[in-house]
Amino acid sequence: MRITDIKIAEVPLDAHISNAVINFSKMTVSMVAVYTDAVVDGEPVVGYGFHSNGRYAQTGLLTNRLLPRLEAAEPKELLDDGTGIIDPVAVRQIVMRNEKPGGHGDRAVAVGTLDMAMWDLAAKAAGKPLYRALHERFRPDSTLPETVSVYAAGGYYRKGDDIPELQREIKEYLGLGYMDVKMKIGGASIGMDMKRIESVLEVLPEGSRLAVDANGRFGLREALDYAAALEAYDLVWYEEPCDPLDYQTHAAIAQEYGGVLATGENLFSVHEVRNLARYGGLRPGRDVLQMDPCLSYGVSEFVEMLDVLDIHGWRPGRCYPHGGHQYNLAIAAAFGLGGCESYPRVFEPFGGFADETPIIDGQVRLPEAPGIGIEHKSTLRELFNQQF
Amino acid sequence: MRITDIKIAEVPLDAHISNAVINFSKMTVSMVAVYTDAVVDGEPVVGYGFHSNGRYAQTGLLTNRLLPRLEAAEPKELLDDGTGIIDPVAVRQIVMRNEKPGGHGDRAVAVGTLDMAMWDLAAKAAGKPLYRALHERFRPDSTLPETVSVYAAGGYYRKGDDIPELQREIKEYLGLGYMDVKMKIGGASIGMDMKRIESVLEVLPEGSRLAVDANGRFGLREALDYAAALEAYDLVWYEEPCDPLDYQTHAAIAQEYGGVLATGENLFSVHEVRNLARYGGLRPGRDVLQMDPCLSYGVSEFVEMLDVLDIHGWRPGRCYPHGGHQYNLAIAAAFGLGGCESYPRVFEPFGGFADETPIIDGQVRLPEAPGIGIEHKSTLRELFNQQF
Repeated sequence: MRITDIKIAEVPLDAHISNAVINFSKMTVSMVAVYTDAVVDGEPVVGYGFHSNGRYAQTGLLTNRLLPRLEAAEPKELLDDGTGIIDPVAVRQIVMRNEKPGGHGDRAVAVGTLDMAMWDLAAKAAGKPLYRALHERFRPDSTLPETVSVYAAGGYYRKGDDIPELQREIKEYLGLGYMDVKMKIGGASIGMDMKRIESVLEVLPEGSRLAVDANGRFGLREALDYAAALEAYDLVWYEEPCDPLDYQTHAAIAQEYGGVLATGENLFSVHEVRNLARYGGLRPGRDVLQMDPCLSYGVSEFVEMLDVLDIHGWRPGRCYPHGGHQYNLAIAAAFGLGGCESYPRVFEPFGGFADETPIIDGQVRLPEAPGIGIEHKSTLRELFNQQF
Repeated sequence: MRITDIKIAEVPLDAHISNAVINFSKMTVSMVAVYTDAVVDGEPVVGYGFHSNGRYAQTGLLTNRLLPRLEAAEPKELLDDGTGIIDPVAVRQIVMRNEKPGGHGDRAVAVGTLDMAMWDLAAKAAGKPLYRALHERFRPDSTLPETVSVYAAGGYYRKGDDIPELQREIKEYLGLGYMDVKMKIGGASIGMDMKRIESVLEVLPEGSRLAVDANGRFGLREALDYAAALEAYDLVWYEEPCDPLDYQTHAAIAQEYGGVLATGENLFSVHEVRNLARYGGLRPGRDVLQMDPCLSYGVSEFVEMLDVLDIHGWRPGRCYPHGGHQYNLAIAAAFGLGGCESYPRVFEPFGGFADETPIIDGQVRLPEAPGIGIEHKSTLRELFNQQF
């Protein structure tokens, strides 16, 4: 099996929304198509990848650094010796050649994007859905779940008095089959934010719960003020109260806040996750970690993260990856994670799952088609067809 | 004052050398030229920037993310209200708009590269050498040094038995006026590395000392083995024994090693530096920090790093930035740092200082020409002239 061509594209995310820190209207996404000489059922095997929202397209890094290294490698270095199929773990090693330690940012996103495409093609070449391919390789002795828990992340800030619009949005998510929902905080005054929270709680039926997300905006004092105010509500979690790398502030908040804390979507390496486990003061039996494999060097780094977390007493069930797409869904199923994020209606067509797996009672099934399932989400397939 | 054009170029570093982790032969550097409508002494004011070795060119990030934000800003947002001159601190805020927290890697390099060019043009527009411009703005009450201590970093691995070549290289540095020198370790067996160290110590005259650099390669056990072996020598420091983000391993080594430890060139944000200060167990009165402003968002972030370090008991004199060029030299002078790195003969023509400021007894003077002094290093000026 050989790679015959790799094409990349850069598309606008086209989301006119804001969290407490950034506006997404100029955000871009990298798309990757990896062509091979393998044929399955008369079709050439092509692997597709893209990356989660929140970080920008990685055209330069892919074109100038990662892909030339892949091209310079011996084709057999890329293969799994046992199966003769391209091995995404080997690819990740190769594309990271001559990179110094530290500096885990855009590089992690570029590698994660390519990793998604490599896993898509490896699973397709093996004729397996990605979640089963990952499970067989990394967790063969565990039981695969039939469904994965997902929650609807939204509740971004819009211009003006957005409460009626916010309530409409949340009701729409409930109508789509979601149970739990997440909304942004930290982009308005604490008083206004509590009003927004109460307006959402008003429309949530019994059994549905709310998470809130500050996107790392607060310093210690403000994070604690919000923590105190949030204790009044029965929230799923209070997410990213402070800078993702400020472990001490995390520890201080964890000491004060009786509810569940969540963080991790802006940690991009096993080193940063190890530091959070060592110094962040979070409670493995209670809190939630949201590292996004797609933004942080892909599956192999995520496996290392889970290993480090295990040493520190964290079970995979405490992980709910950021990202809201089928690659992270497959990873969530394969590794027995607690669930994964979803962004209904925003970050389209990248967010969301296969057309044939609607959300039912906050759970989603895994598609049985080989690969990630990108072809089984019609709007996403269309975009890939347009670009490649 | 308005920016009229910004041009970027990407050039190979063209250094056929290796440290314990990477080979530099494919490494690239971004060069930036910022054109303005300001005229000083009949010459248009142009700011030049590039970045230190070790990280790759940032064409994509500059072109697709940072520069469009600068272009979208109101011209007056870029200016210092008092002087009407472009303010690099304001520029840095603008180019980071809509960037999420965390993920400090290539983005920090791209911002640092642009920051160098902005400080070059701001100092030129003010008719001042950069070190004086920075001193006036950030440390007006401190005394400016006449010279900055520099050391010759080299001693990379070459193919084959490189000891005679290594000794020749070190003698060459001494001949150029350097006193202290630095060599790589960790790319050979510990026995061979000690032989290499002894071969260098043999050729060092009295008053000259040696530092060694493992480039973050070791795990705890190997780092401690090297620490024990290195205690036999009177070294300037033992640099980057372990992964730059592994604070706990730093602390363990600091507990065992009686000599001076150095690290920090692969920390790219104030957050990472704060964590090193909190958790790294390094000794503020003894150890050395090497954050490189050029790779880590530029001068404004470096000022924040110094503030955080001050809280933790670190004086600026314990900082010796990585990078080996005039921008970091000016920063070292302005902020009273302990000194700065230099790479004679490698990473040319980016490394090194102005033609008129030769190294004398391990010290270098600051050029009095306005700006960084890029035009006063003929080989570097030539490269900029070729590219722009």
